Amino acid sequence: MQAFVKSKRAPGGELQSVPDPRPGPNDVVVRVKAASVCGTDVHIWEWNRWAEHRVHRIPMILGHELSGEVVELGSAVRALEVGDHVSAETHIVDGTCYQCRTGRMHICENVQVFGVDRDGVFAEKAVLPELNAWKNDPKLDPALASIQEPLGNAVHCILPEDNVEDLAGKDVLVTGCGPIGLLAIPVAKTLGAARVVATEVNPLRISLAKKMGADVVFDPSEKGRDIAREVRDFLGGHGVDVALEMSGHPSSLRLVFDALRPGGRVSLLGLFSTEVPLDLDDGVIFKAARIHGIFGRRMFETWFTVKGLLAQPSFREKMYQIITHKVPIAELPRAMELIESLQAAKVSLTPKW
Amino acid sequence: MQAFVKSKRAPGGELQSVPDPRPGPNDVVVRVKAASVCGTDVHIWEWNRWAEHRVHRIPMILGHELSGEVVELGSAVRALEVGDHVSAETHIVDGTCYQCRTGRMHICENVQVFGVDRDGVFAEKAVLPELNAWKNDPKLDPALASIQEPLGNAVHCILPEDNVEDLAGKDVLVTGCGPIGLLAIPVAKTLGAARVVATEVNPLRISLAKKMGADVVFDPSEKGRDIAREVRDFLGGHGVDVALEMSGHPSSLRLVFDALRPGGRVSLLGLFSTEVPLDLDDGVIFKAARIHGIFGRRMFETWFTVKGLLAQPSFREKMYQIITHKVPIAELPRAMELIESLQAAKVSLTPKW
Amino acid sequence: MQAFVKSKRAPGGELQSVPDPRPGPNDVVVRVKAASVCGTDVHIWEWNRWAEHRVHRIPMILGHELSGEVVELGSAVRALEVGDHVSAETHIVDGTCYQCRTGRMHICENVQVFGVDRDGVFAEKAVLPELNAWKNDPKLDPALASIQEPLGNAVHCILPEDNVEDLAGKDVLVTGCGPIGLLAIPVAKTLGAARVVATEVNPLRISLAKKMGADVVFDPSEKGRDIAREVRDFLGGHGVDVALEMSGHPSSLRLVFDALRPGGRVSLLGLFSTEVPLDLDDGVIFKAARIHGIFGRRMFETWFTVKGLLAQPSFREKMYQIITHKVPIAELPRAMELIESLQAAKVSLTPKW
Amino acid sequence: MQAFVKSKRAPGGELQSVPDPRPGPNDVVVRVKAASVCGTDVHIWEWNRWAEHRVHRIPMILGHELSGEVVELGSAVRALEVGDHVSAETHIVDGTCYQCRTGRMHICENVQVFGVDRDGVFAEKAVLPELNAWKNDPKLDPALASIQEPLGNAVHCILPEDNVEDLAGKDVLVTGCGPIGLLAIPVAKTLGAARVVATEVNPLRISLAKKMGADVVFDPSEKGRDIAREVRDFLGGHGVDVALEMSGHPSSLRLVFDALRPGGRVSLLGLFSTEVPLDLDDGVIFKAARIHGIFGRRMFETWFTVKGLLAQPSFREKMYQIITHKVPIAELPRAMELIESLQAAKVSLTPKW
Repeated sequence: MQAFVKSKRAPGGELQSVPDPRPGPNDVVVRVKAASVCGTDVHIWEWNRWAEHRVHRIPMILGHELSGEVVELGSAVRALEVGDHVSAETHIVDGTCYQCRTGRMHICENVQVFGVDRDGVFAEKAVLPELNAWKNDPKLDPALASIQEPLGNAVHCILPEDNVEDLAGKDVLVTGCGPIGLLAIPVAKTLGAARVVATEVNPLRISLAKKMGADVVFDPSEKGRDIAREVRDFLGGHGVDVALEMSGHPSSLRLVFDALRPGGRVSLLGLFSTEVPLDLDDGVIFKAARIHGIFGRRMFETWFTVKGLLAQPSFREKMYQIITHKVPIAELPRAMELIESLQAAKVSLTPKW
Repeated sequence: MQAFVKSKRAPGGELQSVPDPRPGPNDVVVRVKAASVCGTDVHIWEWNRWAEHRVHRIPMILGHELSGEVVELGSAVRALEVGDHVSAETHIVDGTCYQCRTGRMHICENVQVFGVDRDGVFAEKAVLPELNAWKNDPKLDPALASIQEPLGNAVHCILPEDNVEDLAGKDVLVTGCGPIGLLAIPVAKTLGAARVVATEVNPLRISLAKKMGADVVFDPSEKGRDIAREVRDFLGGHGVDVALEMSGHPSSLRLVFDALRPGGRVSLLGLFSTEVPLDLDDGVIFKAARIHGIFGRRMFETWFTVKGLLAQPSFREKMYQIITHKVPIAELPRAMELIESLQAAKVSLTPKW
Repeated sequence: MQAFVKSKRAPGGELQSVPDPRPGPNDVVVRVKAASVCGTDVHIWEWNRWAEHRVHRIPMILGHELSGEVVELGSAVRALEVGDHVSAETHIVDGTCYQCRTGRMHICENVQVFGVDRDGVFAEKAVLPELNAWKNDPKLDPALASIQEPLGNAVHCILPEDNVEDLAGKDVLVTGCGPIGLLAIPVAKTLGAARVVATEVNPLRISLAKKMGADVVFDPSEKGRDIAREVRDFLGGHGVDVALEMSGHPSSLRLVFDALRPGGRVSLLGLFSTEVPLDLDDGVIFKAARIHGIFGRRMFETWFTVKGLLAQPSFREKMYQIITHKVPIAELPRAMELIESLQAAKVSLTPKW
Repeated sequence: MQAFVKSKRAPGGELQSVPDPRPGPNDVVVRVKAASVCGTDVHIWEWNRWAEHRVHRIPMILGHELSGEVVELGSAVRALEVGDHVSAETHIVDGTCYQCRTGRMHICENVQVFGVDRDGVFAEKAVLPELNAWKNDPKLDPALASIQEPLGNAVHCILPEDNVEDLAGKDVLVTGCGPIGLLAIPVAKTLGAARVVATEVNPLRISLAKKMGADVVFDPSEKGRDIAREVRDFLGGHGVDVALEMSGHPSSLRLVFDALRPGGRVSLLGLFSTEVPLDLDDGVIFKAARIHGIFGRRMFETWFTVKGLLAQPSFREKMYQIITHKVPIAELPRAMELIESLQAAKVSLTPKW
């Protein structure tokens, strides 16, 4: 079959012909109907420092976001059938560690990720453990089905645990409107948030944030602005109840804790790559704030929430806004360029080889 | 001033001239701009068995749902001003009992209710403790402002604690579409519920339930139907995640536990007046179900949620659907008849004397 | 190997020689070091109505509580080794249903139970799926290791979810002091409960309840007593914060809701076999009570709690109190008699054939 | 009456004769039976930078921790009587702000603190709002009754919300064994913690930490130690489930996030006085950690927990360990010296003038 392979510890990737994958007893083989490109894929494509440190298995097929159709079953598979439409939960877990045994598979001690630790999905076919194959409504557009994985990140930011307090009537701040930040906006609105305030510097993303439903978008790159004060003014004098840090910028982090209302909560998803300074006294302790570190999405509570959201036509329409480009998978290098140059939000890959 | 007074332990009530109310140090006096009629008011009007047992203070001004404008302040009032627009939280609490000291004022051990334990609000003016005067956006229609109290019951059914799991993508059953059941439907939808299934026997209410957004309404009075099976069929084979019992009928209670998905949760608001039989083994224990008894609404978490919901124009529009009649308060007996004969859902009273 | 087999749909069971078990790819074979007898085993032994209805697979090896040593590994087993000491989680789950995928494996839609749906553990060896083999500290006494399963039921009653409010300083009622009720007493105390009040009619169990740490034990069989009032008097005038219903008796159920403090919570474990009447108005709704149906124990949050408790020497000592008899497994009929005649609390079976 | 007064914006304080206090309508006057010295009192005594910035009202009676007997009631007081034994919740709240109306009075937007914002309790008598007067068992030793307030801080660190997961069988880290850190150790143990690991550099406190029940105390001042590794080694290879940061030292903060188990939670109580660097990627995000900022204690959920703990004789005994000195209140300067020189843990003041 055809696949995009990272064959050297260097930038780029190659379209190659590779053997068809074979399923283990608990695996299914999926024919790819749509894939999509994540920032992580770009890091590995560019072979930045993080990638050099993190990726050990070369050659490796790239990519992790996909949707497709089951074409072959491992001998022990019980809950899926040939012809089922599925998406991939991209974290492969051991199922037996402390975290896996206590309802937190997404932080499995031995987690592996498609396209990072093992062969990925930018190929004609991919192999998924049965557990990782999320069964879709066959009527769901494959392009939307593929972006359920980052949509799950957004949902998990908003609902990091079973029992966080609801969003009903609350005000939400999203710092950073990359794909996951953009996705978080309609999720928050659909779950009852009163107002969603966003920050972003890129004009395309600012425009998309408004289309996704942000009530206001502040550009912190404009000089001399006190965004925390502007946020409070916009909200009638008080801070935000919930803040979602999606940017990985220390200045956004500072904004989050400045703009947070006493008793509020914060989800941290953006990575900072280095230690960052934080005023814990005023930002966290005196405010009795709560902070949630966000990694992946809950397996599989978050997926059920995603499914419920995508069952709403108005929500599905919003989702199409962030797929700014559709590119044949054979033109993956062009997709990478669109993202690197910030011309695209989400690029959907169609199975044309 | 003019007021509707229960002056005898017998059916009915009288329009009387009574002295203007005087505020205590922590009270405010409110000029009534709108009031609304609750089922409890009807019970006391009709002087049924429950009312005879429950009501001790006669003569007493009737009514508890209101909105109005502050016209006088007690000496110790700090957070309100003359001219503020307010609604009433109708439970007056002691503030010092175990429940009040642990975030559960709504089940205060010494709770008093307007129009049940002390003078109510079907009058030109009413006295409220400062704590009970909920400050409204002055632009909020007084008729909507008055029904925030039952809307709070509906919200509290759906979010009985800080930390129940969210509704995102979940399926909800509402048994009984009286005013609170009707209000619960758009609340559930606005908080992300995937589908809302309702049951009701009255044609007017069935029609209103659909207008409020119910995906389907089953009439359990039709012979030979297995509603639990129909609910599951409608939902694609599984039960409901959340059930709200609003009817107080044993058959609806049975339906709730039949139709509940394993691991689901139930809120009980409708009163049964007598012991009811329940299959705890299959309905609760084997299903690992969770049940919440619902009384009043949280003081004042629920009010903030209500405020957030009413800030959404589409939600406000839904609210108007259940106000089927506006009646001058001087014609209260007619309002009572409209409700007793099931011709009305919610009757709003206008301050015409 | 030797095993106790139910070979006919009739009372009793037979010691038989049966083939040694073979592991599937994800299974381990365990040599039994200790087993213990549960009420469910007694029902199947007696072949009562429930058993006749519930048990389909005959012949079948009896029993489900065990501890033992791993002697053989299936081909795909990763986290266990020969020589490991393990106990059995007795619910075998599918891992792919809605409940399993949302952190609630204990209510798997396709659950199977050892000694009920498939061969059990009253044998020289038993086969367990790797997931069900809970690894013990090798120093843990096999007799205690075997009763971790019912101890887990007790813990799950007290902590039915991740996020129930803590027991610190709270007062707890346990109705019914069979083995699980008895185990719940020291669990509640060790987790910070202020006082534990129990009810029981059998003299042996009353005496054991006191040894396990109950502050007081009421006997509801004594005529003319108002136990709810006595409970409140004992607690200084208020009801219990947490009630654990372990008896399956309608009168205990009534007591639970009478004695419950407003805002309290109830766990229901005892089965009632029939519909029971309940005063939902006064018992649940006006009290804003919360009820949890309890089935099994959480997989595997509860097991980690159990492990932590058993790491405390004082807690382990309490556990020995309820093992009133040790009987060679070859004398299983005698063990059954001891339990049926209420002479024993928990009977531990030693591997003598 | 006699009182210790801060009469100048400078170090120290003076024993003065001042007028007896008069209660407002909702206040009670309390005759002081015991008081105790908190680190905050020392800061104000020393008049450090924080104090200079924070304290505006001079002259002011010092102190906030007390227990005493009610000797006079305001006109509107309902729930207390002359002769009641009470302690002080030291945060005076407005009762009407967003936080107060949503169960979070401890972070009231207009909070005032005894001995910081208004006259304190190092006097013969003190005035408390009725709400702030916590009624004690009259048999509780006044010295213990007075330290319920910092004990509440410790409890609130461990149980920051209603719905955190329990401590049963969990491993806990306490960094910094000042009085609140020391108090946290037996609280954690009494609530079921498996092991409590502490860090501290002062020999007296190290010794006290062991007496309070710490399983091990590490001294991070010893060169070349990798405490995070030692913690994991001590716990058998994994990190801590719950970490309580009580020191306000950046190195302890780093240790907390190094030693935390994935999925664990952290409470921050110690103040850092400046921005501190934090590795959010590895310490919080990849670990899916949860952080709670801790301020004061819950009003009054925490007080009920404290009451329940103090009802246990073994817990009361532990409490006496940290009262290393009893000093007549007239010798307050000596008490300050004992604490400043780290010779004392908690100093109890007796009412000798």
